[in-house]
Amino acid sequence: MSDISPTIAHGQRAIERCDLLGRAPYSDMEGGLYRAWLTPAHREALDVLAFWMRQAGMQVRMDSMGNLIGRYEGTAEGPPLMIASHIDSVRNAGFYDGPLGVMLGVECVSALHEAGRRMPFPIEVVAFGDEEGSRFPAAMLTSRAMAGTLAPEALEMADARGVTLAEAMQAFGLDIARWREAQLARPPLAYLEAHIEQGPLLEARGLALGTVTGIAAQLRYEVTVTGKAGHAGTCAMGLRRDALVSAAEMVLAVEAIARGMGGDLVATVGRMAVLPGAANVIPGQTVFTLDVRSGDEARRDLAADAILARIRQQGEARGLGVGIEKIHNLPASPCAPDLMDLMDDGIAATGQKPFRLVSGAGHDAMVMEAVCPTAMLFIRCAGGISHHPDESVNVADVEAAFTAMMRFIEGLGERRA
Amino acid sequence: MSDISPTIAHGQRAIERCDLLGRAPYSDMEGGLYRAWLTPAHREALDVLAFWMRQAGMQVRMDSMGNLIGRYEGTAEGPPLMIASHIDSVRNAGFYDGPLGVMLGVECVSALHEAGRRMPFPIEVVAFGDEEGSRFPAAMLTSRAMAGTLAPEALEMADARGVTLAEAMQAFGLDIARWREAQLARPPLAYLEAHIEQGPLLEARGLALGTVTGIAAQLRYEVTVTGKAGHAGTCAMGLRRDALVSAAEMVLAVEAIARGMGGDLVATVGRMAVLPGAANVIPGQTVFTLDVRSGDEARRDLAADAILARIRQQGEARGLGVGIEKIHNLPASPCAPDLMDLMDDGIAATGQKPFRLVSGAGHDAMVMEAVCPTAMLFIRCAGGISHHPDESVNVADVEAAFTAMMRFIEGLGERRA
Repeated sequence: MSDISPTIAHGQRAIERCDLLGRAPYSDMEGGLYRAWLTPAHREALDVLAFWMRQAGMQVRMDSMGNLIGRYEGTAEGPPLMIASHIDSVRNAGFYDGPLGVMLGVECVSALHEAGRRMPFPIEVVAFGDEEGSRFPAAMLTSRAMAGTLAPEALEMADARGVTLAEAMQAFGLDIARWREAQLARPPLAYLEAHIEQGPLLEARGLALGTVTGIAAQLRYEVTVTGKAGHAGTCAMGLRRDALVSAAEMVLAVEAIARGMGGDLVATVGRMAVLPGAANVIPGQTVFTLDVRSGDEARRDLAADAILARIRQQGEARGLGVGIEKIHNLPASPCAPDLMDLMDDGIAATGQKPFRLVSGAGHDAMVMEAVCPTAMLFIRCAGGISHHPDESVNVADVEAAFTAMMRFIEGLGERRA
Repeated sequence: MSDISPTIAHGQRAIERCDLLGRAPYSDMEGGLYRAWLTPAHREALDVLAFWMRQAGMQVRMDSMGNLIGRYEGTAEGPPLMIASHIDSVRNAGFYDGPLGVMLGVECVSALHEAGRRMPFPIEVVAFGDEEGSRFPAAMLTSRAMAGTLAPEALEMADARGVTLAEAMQAFGLDIARWREAQLARPPLAYLEAHIEQGPLLEARGLALGTVTGIAAQLRYEVTVTGKAGHAGTCAMGLRRDALVSAAEMVLAVEAIARGMGGDLVATVGRMAVLPGAANVIPGQTVFTLDVRSGDEARRDLAADAILARIRQQGEARGLGVGIEKIHNLPASPCAPDLMDLMDDGIAATGQKPFRLVSGAGHDAMVMEAVCPTAMLFIRCAGGISHHPDESVNVADVEAAFTAMMRFIEGLGERRA
């Protein structure tokens, strides 16, 4: 590592840049961070990021979906190493979910550039415009466009104000006729994404970093429970068909079954609408989401089947209608074994014992896995908190992440040489 | 009853008029009924109602809050019998909740007028502008103005579009400086309100009519359960503080305790917000309403205390915060015993055995009870369904209600004579 500049605290600078991006004009929300795709905040963030990329010796371009790409040439032609994450955020977000991976990519290139080094492959640092589904009702839209897995109908989706994706792209200055040009002409050499863990596992083990083995298989459903609305004052308890009471039983069953399965299996009811939703009306309908995940697809399916069977049974027992619609079925998305080994080496170079874990959350890496071998590095975050202003990382961990990534890049170069 | 005109089917006409008011221009909703206070639909309804009142021999005036009052003089001066109900409706309403009581009032006066009869007291038929809270976030605003129990701040309330009550009154042509003039200068002789039951009890007993003993005591709370939001994919089941799972336990406790108390006690969670409300986020906060009612205030309080104690205990057991705010505490509002006897006589005159029941729902009668003796007549409705387009009554029942009301009026006259 002697030839990597020690004059700049790269991890610290990555954090500082994320912090800068946490406020206006890089946020469209008063008193917090909200940076949705194709908004003024997104535009401002790309402008400053392009400046940082150029400073780090990169040539900068924007693709036809608003992804910003900084390119650092290698000593040889050939497919690039792509170091990427997303620049968008959820509403009232933390500062590191997404941007930290982008900033660490910039720091890696910056370190090479300062040292006057080129790798035997180009490096492209990418800031994806949408991973969170921050504006439209679907996620990872820009990595899907890059991987060639985005359907054209996506352009007709509307945001909460009724603006379609096509309209938002035009307003951002993109040519919608050319949206398909974002698709990669040829696969990258490899894909590398550093990201905060967004979970409590590293912290619980006292570790700064972890090698991600893959992204958990994820099933998502929408469940509709239909009873009969009625007057809260006049309908006797025994005559009710209350859709919320029934849904409450279902929510508890979801928890009980997921706890019973143990391990990395998680199941969540995150959204619930109670209709008609008046204090003096017995709920006639309840609609809720069910999200089930595990690193092991078979265990995930087993849990989901058990939960859905219980839900149907519970609805029937109360004489209510139960409709179940599958929204998502994302298979597990494994990281490439040889790149996991390289990442373990990178972690070892920081003095930490390598540690592997599955990602319960989805990331752009799962989309890119269809195109090229992927690697992910998880960074400890305080309390596992994410999607919240309390999200935080410590400087030493991010310095270590930078070191591990540099070692990963060098390892890839050694293999290539 | 020989001197009451048999030439008109009064009950049938009352129903037909309610049905007419169920569509444009008497509704502001496409394909259904929504007639909110101080809207164009309200204005149209009052125009045709004023015509019907005049046809029935009444002198018509509008008070300073938009209540329409038809007056039929008696053989003597003195306070009037007020026969009233409300002309507004909830969104996507049935046709009879409110208007039927007004139309039956018009029919009673019409029958007296045709027969050339006057009672020893004036009769005033009143169509209250707001009982449902149909436009502003509070209910029974117009009867409260009449009873002198409406606070001036009410005029600053805004509807869903941000229009204040004061602005809406002005747009309707009312002089807001004179709003207090709606307050009655002296108490009526008595208050009579006929209304659909909005519950299943009469139907379950095979009865057309019931004498209401009073309006149930009603307690309403807002409960806030605060846990910790987290990522649905990365936070292990055992580390969660899920505010929805906890609220689900509370909803089931509400049902269990209310069922356990039995009798007329009812408890309902009608509204629930789950925050932040995303499929991939563990709920960090849940806010729900709790509504507890019984004809017996002591039993109601006992049930509410038991429910709240259990809710606190359940939140504590999961390490979540529980905030409880009392929104309403409406005491039971008893009908006048001597008027109940008169109403029993009225029901007996239809050939049905008198039957008494408590009203779980609130009505303008509960507001007027502060001012004068009140009586209420409940009319069977199919399946107990209300606040829904399926709301329905049958003609024979409404004819019987008309007969019972006429007998009630005559009985009041005999007492007065």
